[in-house]
Amino acid sequence: MPFCLGLDFGTESVRAILVDARSGATMATSVDRYADGVIEHALPGTVVTLGTDWALQNPADWLDGLARTVAGVLSASGVDPADVIGLGVDFTSCTVLPTDARGRPLCQIDGLVNQPHAWPKLWKHHAAQPQADRVTELAAESGARWLPRYGGRISSEWMLPKALQVLEEAPEIYRRAAHVLEGGDWIVWQLTATLTRNACAAGYKGLWHRREGYPSRAYLAALDPRFERFYEEKATGNVSAPGSLAGRLSPAWAARLGLGTDVEVAVPIIDAHAAVLGGGVGEAGPLFLIMGTSTCHLLMASGESLVPGIAGVVEDGIVPGLHGYEAGQAAVGDILAWYVQHAAPASVHDEARAAGCSVHDVLSEKAARLAPGESGLVALDWWNGNRCTLMNSELSGVLVGLTLGTRPEHVYRALIEATAFGTRVIVEAFESAGLAATRLVAGGGLAANPLVMQVYSDVCGRDLEVAGSPQASALGAAMLGAVAAGPDRGGHASLAEAVAHMAPPPSRVYRPDAPRRKTYDELYRCYRELYDAFGRTSDAMPRLRELRVKGVRS
Amino acid sequence: MPFCLGLDFGTESVRAILVDARSGATMATSVDRYADGVIEHALPGTVVTLGTDWALQNPADWLDGLARTVAGVLSASGVDPADVIGLGVDFTSCTVLPTDARGRPLCQIDGLVNQPHAWPKLWKHHAAQPQADRVTELAAESGARWLPRYGGRISSEWMLPKALQVLEEAPEIYRRAAHVLEGGDWIVWQLTATLTRNACAAGYKGLWHRREGYPSRAYLAALDPRFERFYEEKATGNVSAPGSLAGRLSPAWAARLGLGTDVEVAVPIIDAHAAVLGGGVGEAGPLFLIMGTSTCHLLMASGESLVPGIAGVVEDGIVPGLHGYEAGQAAVGDILAWYVQHAAPASVHDEARAAGCSVHDVLSEKAARLAPGESGLVALDWWNGNRCTLMNSELSGVLVGLTLGTRPEHVYRALIEATAFGTRVIVEAFESAGLAATRLVAGGGLAANPLVMQVYSDVCGRDLEVAGSPQASALGAAMLGAVAAGPDRGGHASLAEAVAHMAPPPSRVYRPDAPRRKTYDELYRCYRELYDAFGRTSDAMPRLRELRVKGVRS
Repeated sequence: MPFCLGLDFGTESVRAILVDARSGATMATSVDRYADGVIEHALPGTVVTLGTDWALQNPADWLDGLARTVAGVLSASGVDPADVIGLGVDFTSCTVLPTDARGRPLCQIDGLVNQPHAWPKLWKHHAAQPQADRVTELAAESGARWLPRYGGRISSEWMLPKALQVLEEAPEIYRRAAHVLEGGDWIVWQLTATLTRNACAAGYKGLWHRREGYPSRAYLAALDPRFERFYEEKATGNVSAPGSLAGRLSPAWAARLGLGTDVEVAVPIIDAHAAVLGGGVGEAGPLFLIMGTSTCHLLMASGESLVPGIAGVVEDGIVPGLHGYEAGQAAVGDILAWYVQHAAPASVHDEARAAGCSVHDVLSEKAARLAPGESGLVALDWWNGNRCTLMNSELSGVLVGLTLGTRPEHVYRALIEATAFGTRVIVEAFESAGLAATRLVAGGGLAANPLVMQVYSDVCGRDLEVAGSPQASALGAAMLGAVAAGPDRGGHASLAEAVAHMAPPPSRVYRPDAPRRKTYDELYRCYRELYDAFGRTSDAMPRLRELRVKGVRS
Repeated sequence: MPFCLGLDFGTESVRAILVDARSGATMATSVDRYADGVIEHALPGTVVTLGTDWALQNPADWLDGLARTVAGVLSASGVDPADVIGLGVDFTSCTVLPTDARGRPLCQIDGLVNQPHAWPKLWKHHAAQPQADRVTELAAESGARWLPRYGGRISSEWMLPKALQVLEEAPEIYRRAAHVLEGGDWIVWQLTATLTRNACAAGYKGLWHRREGYPSRAYLAALDPRFERFYEEKATGNVSAPGSLAGRLSPAWAARLGLGTDVEVAVPIIDAHAAVLGGGVGEAGPLFLIMGTSTCHLLMASGESLVPGIAGVVEDGIVPGLHGYEAGQAAVGDILAWYVQHAAPASVHDEARAAGCSVHDVLSEKAARLAPGESGLVALDWWNGNRCTLMNSELSGVLVGLTLGTRPEHVYRALIEATAFGTRVIVEAFESAGLAATRLVAGGGLAANPLVMQVYSDVCGRDLEVAGSPQASALGAAMLGAVAAGPDRGGHASLAEAVAHMAPPPSRVYRPDAPRRKTYDELYRCYRELYDAFGRTSDAMPRLRELRVKGVRS
């Protein structure tokens, strides 16, 4: 019987899953925490300290984890290694590293271990903000065609600001880098001895476009003359859709993993996008919500539309032949965590302690007993700015309707509702652009919260499915392997087919309640009024932000 | 040497002060808690329970407290009782009781002790809300001239709704009531055997106007035919300005208190208004802020102006010959108390416990270290609606500018600032009507908080004096006694003169800091925009309130 491996490289650990290549049934999973974790203070084994907002990883951790978890699933499942036909990888993004011409990470080269810029920059490395600001400003000034596809703003988390930071702060490291590439692409290069780049990361984080390519030489030279040939020189390698065949397992890695050299290795994908596949969506139409600290909304369609307020669209970004649209809310679970830590009163903490449960549990239980509207509150969920549809990081959160009778569960429910209204705005933005979501499917940590899910269903007036797989990203990666192996080997002919066969059905479907939905329609009207008033008409929030910055400095 | 007594009847206790009639120097004070306190659940000594929102007092407590505290100050001071020349009273209002023709409270008459409506209704008895609504509606429909003087809405706390509730729910009690009168007027009646009514309570709470008198018979009959002659039959007695001579101490009370029958007893005043006098304001011009759970703003001027958004104006209400203007913020200290109880996180409570201080202390100390604007927040202080200038109890509180970096001290300071902005709106409303406050003077519990006072001074860009007397109401009552006694006996010729001689200088003056004021001007601009948006343009808050009421019922 044929099996596939999925490898899910996260922020703190790597997870392997071994599945039946036809049915997707899980045979075993294994997780390995990175020894050096997220490197934020000092380089491992050195006294070299890092600046504010730095976040690195150790590529040795990735490979060690890969080897250990693959050994783990083979041993736990008892599957014959000869029956493994395909292997897929998903990775955080944009996690990016410089290597020499042979693919050796610069941080592993003698004499460079003490150089922070020689190490992989993790997605949440935020120290390239000045570079990001210049990337955006120059693109805006020069009227770059690609800027609107990204909502008019390039994040400090992405490829170009990170590479530019290396050039400016460590020109010698930049010079010595033969390649600058995504962690996922590097892993696949290691495994197959072939360098390819995945269209998902290249498109969403690297400013690549299937038809237009990368930003121009002239633009790069205007950023810095030494940067003119960045893409040509250091970002080489064909860009391919995730699930395409990257190559077969190299003899060295086949030996190290105890697998055959006939294992087909797929072009990788970003972890969030893998969750769409593992969550059961392989076709155009459904909107997939990955709900955690923030929420990422992904929808595939067969053409490129301009969706006002939607930040990223990449052809071949998830499934070949389809355009993947990405929207997002900058804070969701983060708002609830903020509430518990900084605004839930002592009484609620006492109750949680007495009941032996979490503060979230206490608040969820009380909030679940409230009817829509009963809190008297409506909030704007902009605690971390608004990513969609306003693309404005200077916006901030609002609570309206506070009275002397307002209690913690009122606020907690209003915050959940506000994030649901934010999702409804995105759903409607897609609709207005002719991309009405055919289904709503949710994954991620918050999808396990019944109160949150029911509120979202009631607010959107839509069925809301919870993805059946508890490890959707890893399963999605395994699907890439099954497609790379193809039907002749026992895999699948396409991602759509792989998803159809390998994804479990939804674990639960939340259905909207008509009376609750009606009340939410009225509350949503309030939300939209506040949304337009604070997001479009008034400049009160940017002014408050400016006063804050001045105040902090005084 | 001549001395005066001031008696301050509060919600929980009565306080006596004995002062030098010329200089106002305090000789002694004494406080006595009412044995039955605020009666909210069952009538004393009975099993008769009260409805929701009821609040009564026992008139026996008033007299017992009066006798005990007068004995207390005489004994503690060693003053010769023969040297006491005057006595003044202040009282909560509208605290109202029915009596027989001789002034005996109906609750002390055989057979009526079990009748809740036979007892005095305390100012905060809120069970006459249905009656208050009808009083307001009918006045609006019939175009009553007096309604605009009260901001278009009659409170359930006032005389007419309370009397109407007695009529409707206990017509037999209503029939047996020869008089329905204020607690302060009743005390003075007891002491002097002469029934007068003070213009302060009659004007602010009884709908009396010096030139127009009371609401018309036709209006009362439309409320209820049996109510037609309420004022003529049950609200008899001349209305006189506070500090006028009501009469001399009756032989019975002189004997009970150990005082002479030549003690001149003054027409009383409401407790808040007494604080203005005791706080050092006896003339036209200054704005006096009584800052506690809510804030009452009082300003005297020489004519009757229409001040849009200011709720009450009464000729002779405080000082004869002057018009007393009353504005207010419905919640101030209440908002901070709400924050500590329902929104200050466990961490702050832990810090307070560790430091052995209050949560307010911890928050005030941290908030005091912030610069204006540094919180990034601006709030609307409408947790209990907006009394001035919008007169709308359906409005509610707003917080704008929340981020993941918002901390408790940011919110706490923003709430203080919001109440300061609310006061600035009132100061400016007076100014726009040609009544620019010549000074700002604060009294009440919050006046002891240096952070609050400094913020108010910076926000208003004005010097802010803190009244020098820690018991301004009682001192103000004693001033009434000194004026009733007059200069020939060793008192004073007028309230203005009494205040000039008897009030201590401000205990502290807060002065605005120019840079902070400048930042607050910018924040105030945000506040005013929100004020107009939510208070005038948008109906979001009334809609939220309606949804809340529906939600609670569902």
